[in-house]
Amino acid sequence: MSTTINVPPGLRNVVVTETTLGDVRGEEGFYHYRQYSAIDLAKSKTLEDVWFLMFEGHLPTADERERFIAEVAPLRVLPDEVRAVLPAIAIAGPVFNPLAGLRTALSLLAAVRRLPPLWDADPVRQKADAMLVCAVTPTILAALYRLREGLEPLEPRADLTAAANWLYLVTGNEPSAVDATAIEHYLISTLDHGFNASTFTARVIASTGADVVSAIAGAIGAFSGPLHGGAPDRALASLDEIGTPDRIDSWVREKVSAGDRIMGFGHAVYRTEDPRSLMLRDIARGIGGDLVEFATTVEQRIVDVLAELKPGRNLYANVEFYAGVVMELCGIPRAMFTPTFAVSRVIGWSANILEQATDPKIIRPIATYVGPQPPAPIP
Amino acid sequence: MSTTINVPPGLRNVVVTETTLGDVRGEEGFYHYRQYSAIDLAKSKTLEDVWFLMFEGHLPTADERERFIAEVAPLRVLPDEVRAVLPAIAIAGPVFNPLAGLRTALSLLAAVRRLPPLWDADPVRQKADAMLVCAVTPTILAALYRLREGLEPLEPRADLTAAANWLYLVTGNEPSAVDATAIEHYLISTLDHGFNASTFTARVIASTGADVVSAIAGAIGAFSGPLHGGAPDRALASLDEIGTPDRIDSWVREKVSAGDRIMGFGHAVYRTEDPRSLMLRDIARGIGGDLVEFATTVEQRIVDVLAELKPGRNLYANVEFYAGVVMELCGIPRAMFTPTFAVSRVIGWSANILEQATDPKIIRPIATYVGPQPPAPIP
Repeated sequence: MSTTINVPPGLRNVVVTETTLGDVRGEEGFYHYRQYSAIDLAKSKTLEDVWFLMFEGHLPTADERERFIAEVAPLRVLPDEVRAVLPAIAIAGPVFNPLAGLRTALSLLAAVRRLPPLWDADPVRQKADAMLVCAVTPTILAALYRLREGLEPLEPRADLTAAANWLYLVTGNEPSAVDATAIEHYLISTLDHGFNASTFTARVIASTGADVVSAIAGAIGAFSGPLHGGAPDRALASLDEIGTPDRIDSWVREKVSAGDRIMGFGHAVYRTEDPRSLMLRDIARGIGGDLVEFATTVEQRIVDVLAELKPGRNLYANVEFYAGVVMELCGIPRAMFTPTFAVSRVIGWSANILEQATDPKIIRPIATYVGPQPPAPIP
Repeated sequence: MSTTINVPPGLRNVVVTETTLGDVRGEEGFYHYRQYSAIDLAKSKTLEDVWFLMFEGHLPTADERERFIAEVAPLRVLPDEVRAVLPAIAIAGPVFNPLAGLRTALSLLAAVRRLPPLWDADPVRQKADAMLVCAVTPTILAALYRLREGLEPLEPRADLTAAANWLYLVTGNEPSAVDATAIEHYLISTLDHGFNASTFTARVIASTGADVVSAIAGAIGAFSGPLHGGAPDRALASLDEIGTPDRIDSWVREKVSAGDRIMGFGHAVYRTEDPRSLMLRDIARGIGGDLVEFATTVEQRIVDVLAELKPGRNLYANVEFYAGVVMELCGIPRAMFTPTFAVSRVIGWSANILEQATDPKIIRPIATYVGPQPPAPIP
């Protein structure tokens, strides 16, 4: 019998792998992609640049950028077999569920394109499959939304950047430069974020040698979990619920005394202000308006009241809070807030899957049986 | 900074959770569901009994069995919204991919039935959703197969046991008692098997609080990975490749010297004969015939040659080898061998998901960043 290794519940602080993709330093309020500050990348690079960085390990030269953009453009177009089924997926169920719809469509795509297991694919094919999934994800999500709304899906525009194309596909309008830049900053800043539960899920599935979509489909499921976080519409719903500045304190105190979590505040890793939140607050302030005024007032009061009610917990606004504000300002409908998150995070998952594919070892821990001792006689 | 914990690669021998569902004792060649020998259960109980045992913690009384069967019957019937899309899913792609098709259909079902996150559902609802997924999985898989073959899908039969209903749905014929019993033994024996990679995947996703289908969709992906194992058609393909007894030795030696794995032999946990293989061999011998004769000859020679070429590795026939033989004898087409495995394993995944849902802790390990140190200046 091999010796078993006991570790803290939930594998907390257990190192499952090495990575060169990035990390989060929760105490410092800092995170990075490769060797670059993620926030600095968001402020100075395009989404395509950072996507290239995560897949290739370095920022693209001008030539590499051009080739990359040319490679992505045709991959945005939906294969006919998937297009044909999207209306049925979009209208399924009493409530629009774009993440489940994305998973359904990608799962179908895997069969249509006959994606090989990672284990049987060379690195070129692995990367091509991951590129396809990342490129087509915005097209699928926007088409599902428009179909659910009774609108015609739009064709992706090769002349637009990934960020502007996303806004175009969802809203039907070519975005202003300000909006496109705001969303591009957001997308880059949420592309990856250390070793969260959906990323870990993607890597576990990839470690079995399964295909890219199998790993992404699992990640989407984990991402949809309430404990994973990442639902910017919930934070904005709180702003609606509060309504006016004089109601902030009573709202927070009621929530806390009822034992409810305040959505948009607190983070599993950060013990300081969330650097994504700081950047998004600046973006929101740059755009300005009543919603931004109200949001900053609410943020400050919630932080103060939480500091009083939960001393030492260091609860600050997380990425959800100002993400919702920025998306609202850019005209994204609330049903598409979380899908917007998914549009960039699928790139982070994919980079993790490609990295995991270089490790031949399956991720397979064990469980300890604690029930009645077998073999018991069968009654 | 919290102290990080280093463990062996792939979390090998790392205990991630406690379970009362069962365990595998690799050194003894023994595995159990709850406190009962899984093989003894397979030989003496129905699939419904063992399904109940896994979900409820005890074997059913006569009354409980009756209620359980009555509860499952209507859940086997496909909802119309899923039924309508199945033909498109079935014909997708150049090669039939029933596992991807199952994942696509279940993902759609989750939206159609608006499955709540585990985190928001009470245990009654959690179990009802898991029951639905387990009951409808055979219907989906068989319908996909028949649609791909150009045949009409059949309606599930409430008057048949789960095992007999599966054979009926796939073959179109009400099975003989011998065939139904053989497949029932197989299904029970593969319902669960310790903490394998697909089960772990299901539990990671469930730990985020996501819905049952999110966890099952992830498990299906992991299950499809070549390193996970569980593809009985591969073992049978080897028998075809070998063809005649005089070719066994040369076939094995060529495979081994080329560095190929011999499908159907060796197991990650068992260091003795696989107890599932022993049971299935007995079942196959009970049915008899040329295929069984040839398979037992091949098995014995492969074990002997492997013992000579890879001394000390203890490579025996695993569950795949005789599973393929038994399924072939029962008239299951080869494309449906792995789906037959999935028909029972989905019950094991579900039992694990329901158990995980009682643990409020997310499973979230960490990774160590080993790339160039940030923050580097952005070029």
